[in-house]
Amino acid sequence: MPLRLLDACARKPVDATPVWLMRQAGRYLPEYRAIREKMSFVEMCRRPDVAAEVTLQPLRRFDLDAAIVFADILLPLEPMGIGFHFTGDEGPVIERPIRSARDLEGVHGIDAAADLQYVMDTIRLVRHELAPGVPLIGFSGAPFTLASYIVEGGHSRNYAHVKRFMYHDPVTFARLMDLISEVVVDYLRAQIAAGAQAVQLFDSWAGWLSPYDYELSILPHVQYVIDAVKGRGAPVIYFANGASAMLDLVAKVRSDVIGVDWRIRLDRAWDQLGDVAVQGNLDPLTLLGPPQAIEERVADVLRRAAGRPGHIFNLGHGMVPQAPPDNVKYLVDAVHRLSAAAG
Amino acid sequence: MPLRLLDACARKPVDATPVWLMRQAGRYLPEYRAIREKMSFVEMCRRPDVAAEVTLQPLRRFDLDAAIVFADILLPLEPMGIGFHFTGDEGPVIERPIRSARDLEGVHGIDAAADLQYVMDTIRLVRHELAPGVPLIGFSGAPFTLASYIVEGGHSRNYAHVKRFMYHDPVTFARLMDLISEVVVDYLRAQIAAGAQAVQLFDSWAGWLSPYDYELSILPHVQYVIDAVKGRGAPVIYFANGASAMLDLVAKVRSDVIGVDWRIRLDRAWDQLGDVAVQGNLDPLTLLGPPQAIEERVADVLRRAAGRPGHIFNLGHGMVPQAPPDNVKYLVDAVHRLSAAAG
Repeated sequence: MPLRLLDACARKPVDATPVWLMRQAGRYLPEYRAIREKMSFVEMCRRPDVAAEVTLQPLRRFDLDAAIVFADILLPLEPMGIGFHFTGDEGPVIERPIRSARDLEGVHGIDAAADLQYVMDTIRLVRHELAPGVPLIGFSGAPFTLASYIVEGGHSRNYAHVKRFMYHDPVTFARLMDLISEVVVDYLRAQIAAGAQAVQLFDSWAGWLSPYDYELSILPHVQYVIDAVKGRGAPVIYFANGASAMLDLVAKVRSDVIGVDWRIRLDRAWDQLGDVAVQGNLDPLTLLGPPQAIEERVADVLRRAAGRPGHIFNLGHGMVPQAPPDNVKYLVDAVHRLSAAAG
Repeated sequence: MPLRLLDACARKPVDATPVWLMRQAGRYLPEYRAIREKMSFVEMCRRPDVAAEVTLQPLRRFDLDAAIVFADILLPLEPMGIGFHFTGDEGPVIERPIRSARDLEGVHGIDAAADLQYVMDTIRLVRHELAPGVPLIGFSGAPFTLASYIVEGGHSRNYAHVKRFMYHDPVTFARLMDLISEVVVDYLRAQIAAGAQAVQLFDSWAGWLSPYDYELSILPHVQYVIDAVKGRGAPVIYFANGASAMLDLVAKVRSDVIGVDWRIRLDRAWDQLGDVAVQGNLDPLTLLGPPQAIEERVADVLRRAAGRPGHIFNLGHGMVPQAPPDNVKYLVDAVHRLSAAAG
């Protein structure tokens, strides 16, 4: 059985462009909302039977080329000694944000296979259920993105706390980044050991840093994580959201695949990234348009990827809850139809 | 008296790099907060004596090379027939968002000199008070940024309403953009006639569009506005926030000066912009760091601008309320000191 997604990660020829969608398991699906009404988001993540079911829901509707394990990027925080909970409207709340060397006392590494066993159990359950042609992607937040939550205490508008910390106490900030990096390495290796066939590192907030600060304080940690995870049988996808104007720096992370947001034309992105597989990059809001608008914009992305092996079609950011499932189906089918015809 | 800012806009030699800061009149200044405690934000904009005072406040503290008139980008909406108010926490609320041809009925052009006379009076008052070496900048929101507020009904996380409108009814959306464009032209011409010596067009949300949609649906309107305002004695500065990964498209607006956000290194930005003056691009959060961190990052921006005439130093986005005034002073002085030494 050919695994289009894994072939594309290795830049091998494929019969049609593989496609999956960030946040493909989520609130835009009524069958997801039906479960979510009965329990909290964190409970859904912690129950392997539920998390596996939610992971598989979009695969039953759409001809997707990959599943991605249902989990939250903050799950590793609790075993690190950093408590958090979700509020209804405002999202995650870190109970004691870390903003000094003193705050960092008592925070520690994890043993992901044991501490996050429910994620590994979800991966095993999903692998058992998945059709053989569809690989399963594991994932983690990247070090800076996790540090942002830990320092800001939740979502942030401008990352004032984490940047202030980085400027005023770069030594302690680097210690925090080192600690998180070890956690991320352990967590991704455990997911691969449990059966994840590819892993994505989400650097959702990297693009809120200047290139100067990204290169100085963040890039070395991402390189460390990727070097430690690569070559274990699962390709690594690195997605730095908002970083489209510094892709020459992002290319230095040495990932197998680079995810690209929707703020750049894919050919221009690829020119800067060089010989690497590339994932992206349709504006997720395109899904709110009529089929004709979706088709034109899918065709534009495919045209800009043409002639280079190793394109994985995706959105340039996560799906929005308002996306109509019929439009998602139209999108997935259009990617296959247009790319198979072009190939 | 040499006007460094205007010389730089014309790409003439200057003795030191001119500097002003987006949102330099604002909440980070205690003397601003003292006035704001006594009246609403909109009242401050509508009283020329107060708006002029607030415009001049940062000039008394810092050696800035320009003043920018204190106003809100939504002020032209009311004379267009679009009511709005500000709430404490959530910012502006448009009373009847426009999302269809029917909603657009009754919305009309303005006569800025009369309808927004208080802005023109503020400009005249400030010009009278300003030191002769310091020019005054007028400004307006750009068509898409104003359309976003009008369609979304206020701030937005993902611009779902305005993008849906653009995809489903491109003809009516273009009519809305045409109407706003005429308003912006009239408003900027009136500000120049009242004494503004340069004008900035803020496209604060342009970077939330894909390059595909920016080029198709937004760029022609920006070109129309700039062509209609240019050549009237005041250079035009166009700032498209978040658009650093599509600067080759932004260059097509034919503005005298292009503002650049902090997500790109300035030399790489300038390479794409070509023979034009460039404004930017320090991360505004740098102001939360210690002087050493500010100095290093100012020096990096200046180094990347070196050898090309026409650099105006600015932040890559507006000042944050937490910025310590002492750090702002350090920044402004560092720009002059380092650039004069290098020149």
